Order: sequence, then C-alpha cells, then structure tokens
Amino acid sequence: MTIMSRRKALGVVGGSLVAGAVAGGAIVTGAGMTNQAHAAAPGAAARFQFEEQPFGWKAHVLDPAECAAVAYDGYWHKGYGCGYGVFYSIVGVMAEKHGAPYNQFPFSMLEVGKSGISGWATICGALLGAASAYALFWGRKERDAMVNDLYRWYEQTAFPIYNPGPAAKGVAGDLPTSIANSPLCHISVSKWCYETGFADKSKERSERCARITADVSKMAVEIMNAKITGAFVKQYKNPESVEYCNSCHGSGKESPIAKGKMDCAPCHSGTEHTQNKYKDHP
Amino acid sequence: MTIMSRRKALGVVGGSLVAGAVAGGAIVTGAGMTNQAHAAAPGAAARFQFEEQPFGWKAHVLDPAECAAVAYDGYWHKGYGCGYGVFYSIVGVMAEKHGAPYNQFPFSMLEVGKSGISGWATICGALLGAASAYALFWGRKERDAMVNDLYRWYEQTAFPIYNPGPAAKGVAGDLPTSIANSPLCHISVSKWCYETGFADKSKERSERCARITADVSKMAVEIMNAKITGAFVKQYKNPESVEYCNSCHGSGKESPIAKGKMDCAPCHSGTEHTQNKYKDHP
Repeated sequence: MTIMSRRKALGVVGGSLVAGAVAGGAIVTGAGMTNQAHAAAPGAAARFQFEEQPFGWKAHVLDPAECAAVAYDGYWHKGYGCGYGVFYSIVGVMAEKHGAPYNQFPFSMLEVGKSGISGWATICGALLGAASAYALFWGRKERDAMVNDLYRWYEQTAFPIYNPGPAAKGVAGDLPTSIANSPLCHISVSKWCYETGFADKSKERSERCARITADVSKMAVEIMNAKITGAFVKQYKNPESVEYCNSCHGSGKESPIAKGKMDCAPCHSGTEHTQNKYKDHP
Repeated sequence: MTIMSRRKALGVVGGSLVAGAVAGGAIVTGAGMTNQAHAAAPGAAARFQFEEQPFGWKAHVLDPAECAAVAYDGYWHKGYGCGYGVFYSIVGVMAEKHGAPYNQFPFSMLEVGKSGISGWATICGALLGAASAYALFWGRKERDAMVNDLYRWYEQTAFPIYNPGPAAKGVAGDLPTSIANSPLCHISVSKWCYETGFADKSKERSERCARITADVSKMAVEIMNAKITGAFVKQYKNPESVEYCNSCHGSGKESPIAKGKMDCAPCHSGTEHTQNKYKDHP
C-alpha cells in the first residue's frame, strides 16, 4: 500500500499511484484543509497510527441559528434522524463553507444515532451527534467539559424550543414540552409521550424530535463557538441527586461503584414509573 | 469551492485545483477504494449531498479472533477506550488490509464512546463502536437487525469472556463475570462493581471493560461476516419483559408511549436498586 503526501501526489499523480496491487489513496489538499495524509505502513507496527494528528481537524465558528435550521432539515433528510441532523449541522456546514477535510466525512454513518441507536433508545441521537462532532476537534481532556454542559442543559430543559414556522416538515404550530431529566432517548421520548398523550410513532413525536435536533445543534454550536474563542466557561453543576449518590458511591468513597454522570433520580428515587410493573400493574 | 472527481484530478492536478480561494479537495483512489469523490457545490442546493453513495463503503470479511485482540489493544491505546477499540478493530483492520477509504477515517473521533460518552455512562461505548462501523456499510434497513442481535447478546451474556493471557495490559488472570441485562454503560459497569466488589475506578474494572471491548468486537465481526456472506439470520428474541410492556405500550396498542428495545426489567420491575434511595437508604 502506498499513501502519498500532498507534495508527492502533486508531483507524480498519474504515475505509480494506481499501479499494481496498490490499495492506498492520496488526498490532494486545498487551502484550509488539515492534512490527513500519512505515511503509515499496514500491519501491527503501524497499528492505531493512521491519523497524523488525532483530533486534528480545525473547528470553525458557525452561526447557531443557521445550524439549528440545517439540523432540523437534516433530521428529515432520508429519515437519517437526530444524530445525522446535529452532526451534519456542524461538520456538514463546515464542509459547505470550508471544503476538505470536512466534505470527505462519510456523513450517513451518523444515522447510527437514529432513535437512540437502531431504535434501542439508549443515548439521545442528537446528543451523540454533537459529542461526535466535538470529537473531531478535541480530545477528551478538552471535550468532556463541553459535553457535560450540553448534556446537563439537555437534562434540565423543557423541549422542544425550536419552531420551524412555515418550514415545518412534520406538524406545524406549537408543541407541548416536557423536561427529560435524562440524556437517554427512552426516558426523553417516553416521558414526553406520557405527559402529552402523543404516541411514540405519531407525527407529532417525530416533529418534536426534529425540533430537539435543532435545539441541541444550537446549544452545541454556542458551546463550540465559546470554546474556539476562549470564552467557554462551565455553566451547569451536578444535580443534587448526583452529589448525594456520589457522597457514598463516587470515587474514593465507601462504596465506589457508580459509573456515570446522569441524573440518578429518574431511576433511583422510587417513582411510580420504577415500581414493579409486572405485578398488579393497571 | 471545487471538488474534483478522480478522473479530473488525475488529469489536472497541479493546475487549477489549489488556485485562488479553493478549499476543496480530491481523493485520488487506488484499487479497492469506494470512490468518495463527488461534484457537489457548497450551499443549500447541495446540502446533505457530499456523499456520492451513502453507506457506500464496502465491508470485508475479517477474522473475529484477530479483531478481538486488536480491540483489546485499542481500548488501551492512548486511553481512547471501548468505542475506539471496537471501531478500530473493524474499520482500522480493514484499513491495514485494504487501504483507502478506511485509512482516511479520523479514527480518534471514536474516543467519543469512552465511558459511555464523556463519562456519562449512557450507551456502552463498545456497542456504539460496533454500530458505528456497521453504519459505514449498511443503512438502517439492513443494519438494525444486526445491531439488535449484537445488543440482545450483550444484554444476556456474562462478561468478560476474553482473556488476553500474557498480553494483559491492566490485570492478568481470570476476572469475575456478571450479566448486565442492559446495553447501558452505567448498569453494565455499576452492576459488575456491585457484584464483584471492585471500584469503578479500579484497574480490574478497566481490564474488565477492555476485555468486553474484545468480546463485542468478536461478536460484531461474526455478525458482519455472516451479513457479508449472506448467512446472517436473526438469533435473539425480545426478552419477556419487552413483550409484556409492548403488549400495552407498543405501537398501535392502548398506551403506545414506549420508545426503545432495551430490556425493561432493570428499571421497571421494582428491584431494590430502583427504590427510593433518597429516603431511609442504608
């Protein structure tokens, strides 16, 4: 396999590059592209070395309102859903404005977040799309605080906020809101359905999730812009439930078994929803 | 922005490509590469059109045992964790064997899955890495059944299974196992810690998750290989809890509010773990 640097490619393209059993490729870069070309050979010696610069893509300041509208449309595009919508609204908009490397990303991969990953309703796909976009630009030491603020905001916010007006693709007009208290799709969606009376498979629920895709994009871009300009400051604290549980189950405490940062209350405060539904359930 | 097809790039590289304000790029492809080059112009007209062929990367049959070992090492590589480990063990191994487009992927992005996304312990990152790899090759109509079997298997299996032997990077020797009954990192990890007595931040817990990264890779590759060769047949059924809840809360039923496929029992069967921990908790 031969993988060529930009300079080499510019010099010899049309020559040996595609000869023989060569399976490599070269990216010919334009202005503004982080060079992703590399000289790694295949096999264990080069394992994990394909990227010249991990987290090396450059983040650009974007317009949160513009991105929110793109995210809303992205949700509906071919039914790719929330993860694709948020991710494209950040990385795709950078591609539209700045070209490579952003435009080389296989965007449809982010359909993976739809309905909390193949309908399993685990992580809200919109939140996955945002964290995935951040991870192109920042490693965990920089990224985790950004994700924390985005997810805490999501836990505590009454959604949906965004209203597409005449551009609505599902249902026009206002929609009722609910607070998820969780970054999980299952809790976020089912609680909204429980509180509003709309079915999970209803057009209204799809519209609600399309609007949350826009909401998450807007906040994710605001956090990203602040990070880029050096203005990012952590805004959200842990909820009381997390502080209380961590006082015994956090790292270094009496029973340090608790993994995670999610609000503990939805599943550990003995609500009617977590009682035994397999016995005497109406 | 000018984005050139392979043919055009081969013809005019060194000419107008990098002139002026051009920010685009061209991928010069070798044998075995799915052509990701495209002719989209920037802006709303081309929105969502960067990929010539969505889900267009070609999946190759891999050796599950080889991939499992790579996944284990990938977990430890720079601390990138479980999502990176599984994803690299599939897409990275294809890159080692087949070059582009696989070797152009910004692999470090998959660190996003570490500790269930920035320590939030939502989706198990290993499961995210597998589903994300599938999503390069198959759209949801093909992919969802593969993810279903992988996640159901994960819910019901006593982990860890993999033993790296003398290649252990955390703790050598056998480790105790537990069944998560959930694809969520929080439940999977905290339950294992609760049942074994190891702390979340312990070396043993990290080793356990590295081994699960290998376990998920192996099963994910087996499912992928079966899909490629046409031998894939759904193996796992819904647990009784899901069938029971869906009999009223599924689509078209009396109260169709339930989103998701996760085993309902961990949070909805009134176990001691979901009682009110904020009142009279020992």
